[in-house]
Amino acid sequence: MIDLDENTVTDATLAQMATTADPRLKTIMDAAVRHLHAFAREVDLTPAEWLTSIGFLTQVGKACTDIRQEFILLSDVLGLSAVVNALHDKKAAELGTQSSLLGPFFREGAAELPLGASIIANPSVPEIVLYGQVADNDGTPLPHALVQVWQTDEHGLYDVQAHADAHMDMRGNFRTDADGRYHFRTVRPLGYSIPMDGPVGKLVQNQGRHGMRPSHIHILITAPGHRELVSALYFGDDDHIGSDTVFGVSASLVVSAANNPDCPIPGLQSVRYDFRMPRAADNDTGRVGADPASFQPAAE
Amino acid sequence: MIDLDENTVTDATLAQMATTADPRLKTIMDAAVRHLHAFAREVDLTPAEWLTSIGFLTQVGKACTDIRQEFILLSDVLGLSAVVNALHDKKAAELGTQSSLLGPFFREGAAELPLGASIIANPSVPEIVLYGQVADNDGTPLPHALVQVWQTDEHGLYDVQAHADAHMDMRGNFRTDADGRYHFRTVRPLGYSIPMDGPVGKLVQNQGRHGMRPSHIHILITAPGHRELVSALYFGDDDHIGSDTVFGVSASLVVSAANNPDCPIPGLQSVRYDFRMPRAADNDTGRVGADPASFQPAAE
Repeated sequence: MIDLDENTVTDATLAQMATTADPRLKTIMDAAVRHLHAFAREVDLTPAEWLTSIGFLTQVGKACTDIRQEFILLSDVLGLSAVVNALHDKKAAELGTQSSLLGPFFREGAAELPLGASIIANPSVPEIVLYGQVADNDGTPLPHALVQVWQTDEHGLYDVQAHADAHMDMRGNFRTDADGRYHFRTVRPLGYSIPMDGPVGKLVQNQGRHGMRPSHIHILITAPGHRELVSALYFGDDDHIGSDTVFGVSASLVVSAANNPDCPIPGLQSVRYDFRMPRAADNDTGRVGADPASFQPAAE
Repeated sequence: MIDLDENTVTDATLAQMATTADPRLKTIMDAAVRHLHAFAREVDLTPAEWLTSIGFLTQVGKACTDIRQEFILLSDVLGLSAVVNALHDKKAAELGTQSSLLGPFFREGAAELPLGASIIANPSVPEIVLYGQVADNDGTPLPHALVQVWQTDEHGLYDVQAHADAHMDMRGNFRTDADGRYHFRTVRPLGYSIPMDGPVGKLVQNQGRHGMRPSHIHILITAPGHRELVSALYFGDDDHIGSDTVFGVSASLVVSAANNPDCPIPGLQSVRYDFRMPRAADNDTGRVGADPASFQPAAE
C-alpha cells in the first residue's frame, strides 16, 4: 500500500478510472480529475473552503426546478457556456450564424403559432416585427424549419417570472414558409438582471458584478440535415451590450429596430435577421432536446 | 465590443470578476474559471456533453438530503477530498495523526456517552473495544477532548441506511478522561459499497470500479488550541485495503483487532490507537462544524 500525497493521489485516481468502458467518458473524467486536483493544489484549498464549496454546489442543485436551471446559470456567469459555444462554432464544417447561449429559460413545448402571430399575450408597448429568412450556407432557403423563440417582456421578465402560475408567454414556435421565410410580432425585450435570489446571484454580488444581460431575443432553429442553431439577437443600444454577465454577445448578432420597407407587416418597427444553417457533420448535435426537468445523469 | 473566442472568453471572465472584494474568493474563483475553461478546451466539450454534465450535477444536488451528501461523495470518488486532506496535513506546523475523509455520513448531535459505553444498539456479533490516548505532539495528554466516532454496523450499513427512520446508531461522542484516555465498545464494521443508487454510484459503475471501501471507523477529535482532526482507522485484513474507492487509506491509519493485555475491558478483542493532535496554527480549521443540511452558499 502506497501512502498518497496531494500529487500522487491524482495518478491513483486515474488508475482506478482506467477501467471505464466508454472511451469518451474516460477522456472527459480523466481531464476533469486532473484539472480539479490542479485547481485544489494551486489555491491550496482548505477543508473549510472545500466544505463551503460543497455547500454552494448543493444549494445550486437545490435551486433547480422544472422552470429554473441554476447550474446552467452558474456555467453562464463563469463563462463556461461561452467557451463551449465557441468550441462548437469552430468545429462546424462551414461557418453559419454564430451561436449564443441557450440560457436557463428555454422551455420545451411552446405553442406553434402561424407566421405573423404575436408571442406576447398582453403587450403594453407598441409591437415590433422580427423577420427574415432561414437558409443553408449556399443561400438555399430552408422551408419548414422550426424556429423557436423566447425572450423577456418589456419589463425584463420571462414568463416564469412574470406570471405567478408560470404559464407560457413571450415565447412561441414557428415554421418557415416555402421560401424559408419567417416573421412574427413581439415587443422589444428589456435587458435584465440574472436571478439574484439564488446561490449564483449571491456569488455574482460577492464578485461586485452588475449581473445584467443586454436586451436580447433567444432563437433555436432546427432543420433536418443541418446543425441545430442555438443563438440570440442583441439590441445594440442597450447600456450593457459590452458587459454581458454571461458573455453571450457577438458583433454579428447585434441588431436594431428600424422602419424597414420590406417588413411583412407595414407600419411597425422591425428587425430583419437572416439565419445561415451549416450542414450537419457527424457528432455535432448542438444541444440535446430536453427541458431542465428531464436532464439525465452522465453516461447513464 | 470584442468578439470572444474559446480562449479570449477566459480573460473576459477574469476581467469581469476583478471587482471581487474578498481577495480569497477572487483567488479561488479566478483559478476555478481558468481550470474549468482549460478542461473544456482540452476535451473539446460539446454542447450535448455540457448539457449532460449540467444534468448530472443537478441530479447530484437533488440527491442531497438531511442525511445524504452526494456532492461530498462525488468529491470523494474523484480523489478531491484526499487532495484537500493531504494539503491540509502538509500545512500543519507539526505532523500529528494523519487525516482521512470526513465522508458523507457524519452527523452532528450524536449522543455523548460515558467512556466504556457501546455505540451499537443491538450487536449481533461479539463486541470489540477501541481505546487509546489523545495527546499533543509532545505527548502531553489532552483531557476532555471531544472524540466523535461513527461507522457502519457488522453488515456494512450506516444508521441512515440500516434504520427506516434513520435514528442515530453506530455513532457516539466521548470525552477523554484526566489522562487523555478514551475507550468504548463497538463491533468491527464491515467494508461496504458507496451508495450506488444515486448519480455518483452510476458514474462509478460506468467507470467499471468496484465502489468498495475497506472496513473503517471514522473519528473526529476536537481539543481547544489544537487542529481539529478528521481521520479514520482502517482494518488491514480487508480485501479492499489497497483499492479504496475514495483514496482514504494511509499506512499509519491501518489497524487490527487483537487480545491486548492493557485493554480497559478484559475479555474482548480490541484495537489500541493513540492520536496526536498538532497545535492549531492561524487559519487552519480542519472542518467547519455543520451537518450537511445546514451548509451555506459560498461567501454569503
